[in-house]
Amino acid sequence: MRTIRFGAIMRVLSALMFIIAIAISLCIPLSYIFETQNQFSFTTSALLCLLMSGLFKLGAINKDKTVNKREGYLIVALAWLALWASCTLPFLLSGSISSFTDVFFETISGLTTTGATILTDIESMPKDILFWRSFIQWLGGMGIIVLTVALLPLLGIGGIELFVAEAPGPTSEKLHPRIKDTAKALWFIYLGLTVLLFVLLMFTGMNWYDSINHALTTLATGGFSTKNNSMAYYGADVQYLITVFMFLAGVNYSLHYLTLKGKWKKVIQSDELKVYFMLVVVLTAIITFQVYRVSDITLEQAFRDSIFQIVSVITTTGYITADYTSWTEGLTVVFFIMLFIGACAGSTAGGIKLIRHIVFFKNSILEFKRILHPRGMIRLKMNKRVVPPRILTHILVFLLLYIGTFVFGTILVVSVGEDLLTAAGAVATSISNVGPGIGKVGPVDNFSELTTASKWILSVLMLVGRLELFTIYVILTPYFWRNH
Amino acid sequence: MRTIRFGAIMRVLSALMFIIAIAISLCIPLSYIFETQNQFSFTTSALLCLLMSGLFKLGAINKDKTVNKREGYLIVALAWLALWASCTLPFLLSGSISSFTDVFFETISGLTTTGATILTDIESMPKDILFWRSFIQWLGGMGIIVLTVALLPLLGIGGIELFVAEAPGPTSEKLHPRIKDTAKALWFIYLGLTVLLFVLLMFTGMNWYDSINHALTTLATGGFSTKNNSMAYYGADVQYLITVFMFLAGVNYSLHYLTLKGKWKKVIQSDELKVYFMLVVVLTAIITFQVYRVSDITLEQAFRDSIFQIVSVITTTGYITADYTSWTEGLTVVFFIMLFIGACAGSTAGGIKLIRHIVFFKNSILEFKRILHPRGMIRLKMNKRVVPPRILTHILVFLLLYIGTFVFGTILVVSVGEDLLTAAGAVATSISNVGPGIGKVGPVDNFSELTTASKWILSVLMLVGRLELFTIYVILTPYFWRNH
Repeated sequence: MRTIRFGAIMRVLSALMFIIAIAISLCIPLSYIFETQNQFSFTTSALLCLLMSGLFKLGAINKDKTVNKREGYLIVALAWLALWASCTLPFLLSGSISSFTDVFFETISGLTTTGATILTDIESMPKDILFWRSFIQWLGGMGIIVLTVALLPLLGIGGIELFVAEAPGPTSEKLHPRIKDTAKALWFIYLGLTVLLFVLLMFTGMNWYDSINHALTTLATGGFSTKNNSMAYYGADVQYLITVFMFLAGVNYSLHYLTLKGKWKKVIQSDELKVYFMLVVVLTAIITFQVYRVSDITLEQAFRDSIFQIVSVITTTGYITADYTSWTEGLTVVFFIMLFIGACAGSTAGGIKLIRHIVFFKNSILEFKRILHPRGMIRLKMNKRVVPPRILTHILVFLLLYIGTFVFGTILVVSVGEDLLTAAGAVATSISNVGPGIGKVGPVDNFSELTTASKWILSVLMLVGRLELFTIYVILTPYFWRNH
Repeated sequence: MRTIRFGAIMRVLSALMFIIAIAISLCIPLSYIFETQNQFSFTTSALLCLLMSGLFKLGAINKDKTVNKREGYLIVALAWLALWASCTLPFLLSGSISSFTDVFFETISGLTTTGATILTDIESMPKDILFWRSFIQWLGGMGIIVLTVALLPLLGIGGIELFVAEAPGPTSEKLHPRIKDTAKALWFIYLGLTVLLFVLLMFTGMNWYDSINHALTTLATGGFSTKNNSMAYYGADVQYLITVFMFLAGVNYSLHYLTLKGKWKKVIQSDELKVYFMLVVVLTAIITFQVYRVSDITLEQAFRDSIFQIVSVITTTGYITADYTSWTEGLTVVFFIMLFIGACAGSTAGGIKLIRHIVFFKNSILEFKRILHPRGMIRLKMNKRVVPPRILTHILVFLLLYIGTFVFGTILVVSVGEDLLTAAGAVATSISNVGPGIGKVGPVDNFSELTTASKWILSVLMLVGRLELFTIYVILTPYFWRNH
């Protein structure tokens, strides 16, 4: 490997800052509509991003159009840090969130589509600022798959290596031979589903502003709401509609693409989709029964509360219509464990992702055969193809590192003053980018009461989880920085 | 593979019942010495075991002297179930523990060298019964390595396959070309260390009865005590002495053997021993400081309390001189996590074992190199030899199944009525065969208040953990019972 060429990295950061400048500008009309006096803050933020874009452009002296693996990882990590910093600007300049730590926490919670919030009274916030909060979640949501995949090829530098580094999930079946077209197709589906949900929400009677916000944060599997009570504010029609769209947002986007192309057969054959669907069905059946037994509500309400909370947590969205920690101790544990599931790879969902659970489960069964036939060649197959041992090891290591990160993060958060349950809940929900946890950060609580140290630790964990551990961890190894 | 021949299995069970009959008979003199009136119970128990031995002998019609892999796993599992059932007899017949569930819990806790107890007033128990309780722990302790390894070759059936199935830890370096001699050598060291500790405890002024009991349960890394306050009853001399012997009991017995042979150099080269030693040193340094800071005790006391609790938990012994859950929330979490460590493979310690943690840690570092050089051949080495990918995968799957068992066990225990912390603590300490947990089963509590269902679940988990998951799990797969 050569030395790292920062020129290529600068070019990406420059383009990214330009996009953020445009995104921020889109909020300015809202400042006029809602008369919030934040025009100046948004304009200044956008100009600062433009300035940064220019400065990065000056640094982009290198004319080489390819990036190597190390540069790829650096681009992803630095791009996310630049996104984090730039997206805080409207909050900081408008003064709408007073604490510096809280601004950074809320921003990374948005960008990583986590949806954990430090706001105690969401409805009292200026509406343009709330829109920005929803918008960065939407940008971050598809950013993880599309922006970097689309952006880098647009810049003329090879994105295939980045896709490997950043795609959420171990598989990234090529839809198109050219990655640029893939990105465009996914982006189109993402936008299309968002618009569709917006229209459908309008039909339920929700006003245009809330409809936009909730469409943005549902498709991002983010979960930021404009209401203090999240989706509990709305009626059954909205709750069922959101449940369906959260579920859709957790499906691998390549399956959406195949559906559009009419290749139904391939979609139905997907192991991950089957497991995803069955998991929701089975969990809903079990939990509905339990909730109905312990609560004084109708069966329909028990069903709706159950399926909404289940889909919300599995897709790592984090909207809430009922407090899952108030049902039974057993269900609290089940929801806590659900924080570690995650929906399909190749979606905007965070967490471990079902495909990895399937690999682990299938391989464990094979392991029992292997110990009875130690000399046999018993290989794991997924979708009828042998999984190379290299990939299998990688997935098993990922699972263990995920648990290791959770354990280490929990120790850290406990050591800065939180109780064990709160720490475990906050760390699990942060790494998996869900939103609500257990303990003091349960579904009806928020993150405002945590210590400053906890908030920073959780912010970093959100980013580490969103970039699937390796992207951040590999940069922290001394080996990465050696020239070899 | 052929069909399973139960004849070979019967022969082992017959021999095992004969040994248990002898072991039970050894308690009879104590009934006379302490005038407990339990002579009849012990005699009847021994006779019942002899009867069972005879019945199994009748079933041992098969003259084949070899066992295959499936029969090996069955022998191990059935032998442990037979041990469990037969060792309950003295408790049941003497009526010294009133609840049927409690008898089974206490017995499996002994046999698996866990040391979790349902006794609320240990000192009020008949002394012969207490001795039996300590003795089954000692039998179980080395049973996991030696008894089955020594026993089966003595019976003339090949034990090498069982050693693979049951040896605690992924490596079982051959000491002798013949497994029979290996077993004898290990058994001799185990007995020798027990006698040595007995003599040294007598020198501290402990009476002969308590010295025997504590020597037995220390070397078994079991932790049953004859005192209600466990080792807190004794002074600094006893506590330091026990700390040293707990540490020694957690060392791979092949290293003890090499030490006896004067092969110091090989002992010092052991990666696992180095990690074991450094882990205790580093944890003691950190925790001593913390304990001293929050408690009103001398530095020596803080050091002694820290090192004793650390060594006790890491070696999965479970003796207690101080309540580690009373220090700080952070230390409670650290001790909870320590439940998952385990000492060296090839010792009587339970838990995951350090060698597996080392494999995981080393391989994770390599994984970062692999993602930067995906086409390179980057192989894991332990003790300068390449670890075959087969073994690596097996260890990673073991780690994940261990965590899976913990999570699933916790859900089960919560669902039968315990709170989350208690359940997590009880399940972790049971799978790892430690003894004390956190929550309501902390170091100064006991397991008597748990529900009957919890006690049975935990009993099974102790056995599953002791036999390193696979031995039990493989038998539960439909594949195992198919003829192939």
